[in-house]
Amino acid sequence: MSKAKSFHMSAEEFRRQGHAVVDWIADYHSRVEEFPVLCRAKPGEIRGQLPASAPQRGESFEQILGDLGRIILPGITHWQSPNFYAFFPSNASGPAILGDLVSSGLGVQGMLWSTSPACTELETHVLDWLVPMLGLPEKFLSTSGTGGGMIQDTASSASLCALVAARERATEFASNRKGCDGRLVAYCSTQTHSSIDKDMKIAGMGLENLRHIDVDRNFSMRPEILVRQIENDLNAGFIPCLVCATVGTTSSLATDPVREIARVCRDHKLWLHVDAAMSGTAALCPEFRSIHDGVEFADSYTFNPHKWMFTNFDCNCFWVADRKHLIQTFSILPEYLRNQATESGAVIDYRDWQIPLGRRFRSLKLWFVIRHYGIEGLQHHIREHVRLAQQFAGWVREDSRFEIAAPTQLNLVCFRLRAGDDANQHLMEQLNRSGDLYLTHTKLDGKFTLRLCVGQTNTQARHVERAWQRIRQETEKLGAR
Amino acid sequence: MSKAKSFHMSAEEFRRQGHAVVDWIADYHSRVEEFPVLCRAKPGEIRGQLPASAPQRGESFEQILGDLGRIILPGITHWQSPNFYAFFPSNASGPAILGDLVSSGLGVQGMLWSTSPACTELETHVLDWLVPMLGLPEKFLSTSGTGGGMIQDTASSASLCALVAARERATEFASNRKGCDGRLVAYCSTQTHSSIDKDMKIAGMGLENLRHIDVDRNFSMRPEILVRQIENDLNAGFIPCLVCATVGTTSSLATDPVREIARVCRDHKLWLHVDAAMSGTAALCPEFRSIHDGVEFADSYTFNPHKWMFTNFDCNCFWVADRKHLIQTFSILPEYLRNQATESGAVIDYRDWQIPLGRRFRSLKLWFVIRHYGIEGLQHHIREHVRLAQQFAGWVREDSRFEIAAPTQLNLVCFRLRAGDDANQHLMEQLNRSGDLYLTHTKLDGKFTLRLCVGQTNTQARHVERAWQRIRQETEKLGAR
Repeated sequence: MSKAKSFHMSAEEFRRQGHAVVDWIADYHSRVEEFPVLCRAKPGEIRGQLPASAPQRGESFEQILGDLGRIILPGITHWQSPNFYAFFPSNASGPAILGDLVSSGLGVQGMLWSTSPACTELETHVLDWLVPMLGLPEKFLSTSGTGGGMIQDTASSASLCALVAARERATEFASNRKGCDGRLVAYCSTQTHSSIDKDMKIAGMGLENLRHIDVDRNFSMRPEILVRQIENDLNAGFIPCLVCATVGTTSSLATDPVREIARVCRDHKLWLHVDAAMSGTAALCPEFRSIHDGVEFADSYTFNPHKWMFTNFDCNCFWVADRKHLIQTFSILPEYLRNQATESGAVIDYRDWQIPLGRRFRSLKLWFVIRHYGIEGLQHHIREHVRLAQQFAGWVREDSRFEIAAPTQLNLVCFRLRAGDDANQHLMEQLNRSGDLYLTHTKLDGKFTLRLCVGQTNTQARHVERAWQRIRQETEKLGAR
Repeated sequence: MSKAKSFHMSAEEFRRQGHAVVDWIADYHSRVEEFPVLCRAKPGEIRGQLPASAPQRGESFEQILGDLGRIILPGITHWQSPNFYAFFPSNASGPAILGDLVSSGLGVQGMLWSTSPACTELETHVLDWLVPMLGLPEKFLSTSGTGGGMIQDTASSASLCALVAARERATEFASNRKGCDGRLVAYCSTQTHSSIDKDMKIAGMGLENLRHIDVDRNFSMRPEILVRQIENDLNAGFIPCLVCATVGTTSSLATDPVREIARVCRDHKLWLHVDAAMSGTAALCPEFRSIHDGVEFADSYTFNPHKWMFTNFDCNCFWVADRKHLIQTFSILPEYLRNQATESGAVIDYRDWQIPLGRRFRSLKLWFVIRHYGIEGLQHHIREHVRLAQQFAGWVREDSRFEIAAPTQLNLVCFRLRAGDDANQHLMEQLNRSGDLYLTHTKLDGKFTLRLCVGQTNTQARHVERAWQRIRQETEKLGAR
């Protein structure tokens, strides 16, 4: 049979261009410190260089790769720069990039066990590996009887799943059938990540039914206020269903008193969800594992290897103590998805644990990372980041122009000039504009506060030293204004 | 300064191993026809080969890649085999794999415009490209004034966003504030994808408040029944908010009468969401563009390049006619995400258009695909798949042992033996067990029906010919039982 006409990329072409892309990435990572960390493009500047319509005829891969460097790269904020200290890291690493590449190459759908058993089984297995690695309770193991873990895209989605499952547990699945009735309430602190607010809206529970409990001077939830609020709500006819406790808030990396909150949850039969999106990774090191104190009482727990564990976005890990609430909440089995393995009950179909149906083979990159680094390699880099952040906090403390704005937890330093909001905002903007480093802010006690988070894969002592040097330089200029 | 101890993969190592992974993928795609399409592993078989705990010390990349071939590959159902006809395709291609690799390498977060302007602007731009490519209405263009498009992970999530936005439009954002009250109803057909059922549960609207409207003999929604149901609901005090019309159902690729449904929606001020997850891609060809008749009246529209447009999962495209409902529904702006660009209002922050906060640079792979193939290349392969499916349907029609179970739309053939459910199920299982091809089933008119969907990137005439030959062979054996 004659070879049919084809526009597909041939195997030889894929090999050649694939090598070129790998080299492009290696070069990019080698040169990343040369670029301004925060992108300087103006709104519309990138789009303005793109043709108004799609090409009628295919273009060469060389052209595409050329435009990547010429048009796209100047529009990038360099999250993989070792001088990136903004928000939280979204770090990548060689083994993660290559694990994800294998996932793209295999191109499997993991919605059902049967649609690629390895996709489900490797995920379950690696999530089981992480339970002792992080000092999490055995009830989260897939082999524990009722528990189990899985990969979600983000902590926002994992928390939404926890919230919806808690909603259904509290109403005995009536909300699933008839819809919410406006009486369900959930609890977090004033410092909890905004995704919980968003999740309350999506889940039809209403933002006004999320109680933001006040915090103490360390920005940790005050359990006695939580108790009082729950009692008020019960008296008013509301139905409390979930408390979200945070291990490492976004603002200041504060940790809620999980053990005390767990006691409150037990007394009132509330679902305890623990969000350790950023800080969870620290528990890889025994000396930081106390952040997980009380997590043994949680109904669900989540952390993001795509933040601080050298695993490319998206990779959120989510465990539940009793998977049946999740499955009963999300399960829908149309005829076209029926299959023998599912009917046998001997397998996990992860589509019933999440919002979407389809799912990518995301455990490959996590498996590659854990095997490449080994537990000791991961521990080494986490320890080093914490050490550098604490060292930075020490420098800030010794400089009387500055103050520390919150206890320095792990790898995040919250600090500010003793000079008012405007000066701090100006300092931040000058630093970011210089391109030498990128850091972001929050408000603590109503004051504009700089955040420096040490977590990018390649951040070393010299980068943090240079960051402090640049901060002092810009502060001096500020004084001379 | 002395080089700090590091467990990271060096640039040279990344280059070397990256080339090895690219070659591994090229080899895999070259050999994929040798493997049984549907995986033969037993539950637990893959896990059973993995060590019980994570390695303390890092392992060599060669070991990891070795285990990939030895342990993982036998656990794969080969979605990238040209003999894959099951469900819907989840096809990959060279340019998509490499575009995704660049995304992993850059490792940027696209949650805000400012966190990488190119990530937002390329996405907006490529989604604008697709509007005329698919014959979609101009109101979906980002430059139209109120509309715009974006990439979601899946059609399930896109539909959830449409549903929640419709919910809020109908209640003037009261459900967002106070939660749902059980009175909101939505409409789809008995053939609509199960994700809408799931979305109703997640959104707190309740599955009982989703009306599954009856279909005609072509499995298309009957608008007169829709009208009657809406009137009944209004009389009963319910609040109708959304109709989901499907262009290409999962069972049989049936298309709902969008234009007539749009008229009903306009009369009753309902949100019209059009789900063209699978079939939408066909509209790239002018001769199939009539599937989009009436879409000019839709409030939102979604299709999946990750199904039939040679772009790796996950890549769903989602457009809205008026983005303000979506943004007002999802927007939450905590201090730590505030930035000048957002405050200026001159940019899009896609986090306000979706469930999660974080987002990957997914438009790169779509850009690579469109540029590599060009419009004519995409059209060529879509046409060829449709031609092969229609040819297959012709062979089925000519064989008196078989019947066609639904009109053969585009690239999906629904057919069955004239011999009862057991025979059809047995035939399917024998074929799938042989490893020569993989197809799945549905129920139409209560009867077990085989589905053969021609859409995998590399499926050519010889594969479809061979599939029909194997079906006839197994049918003959069946007769001899």
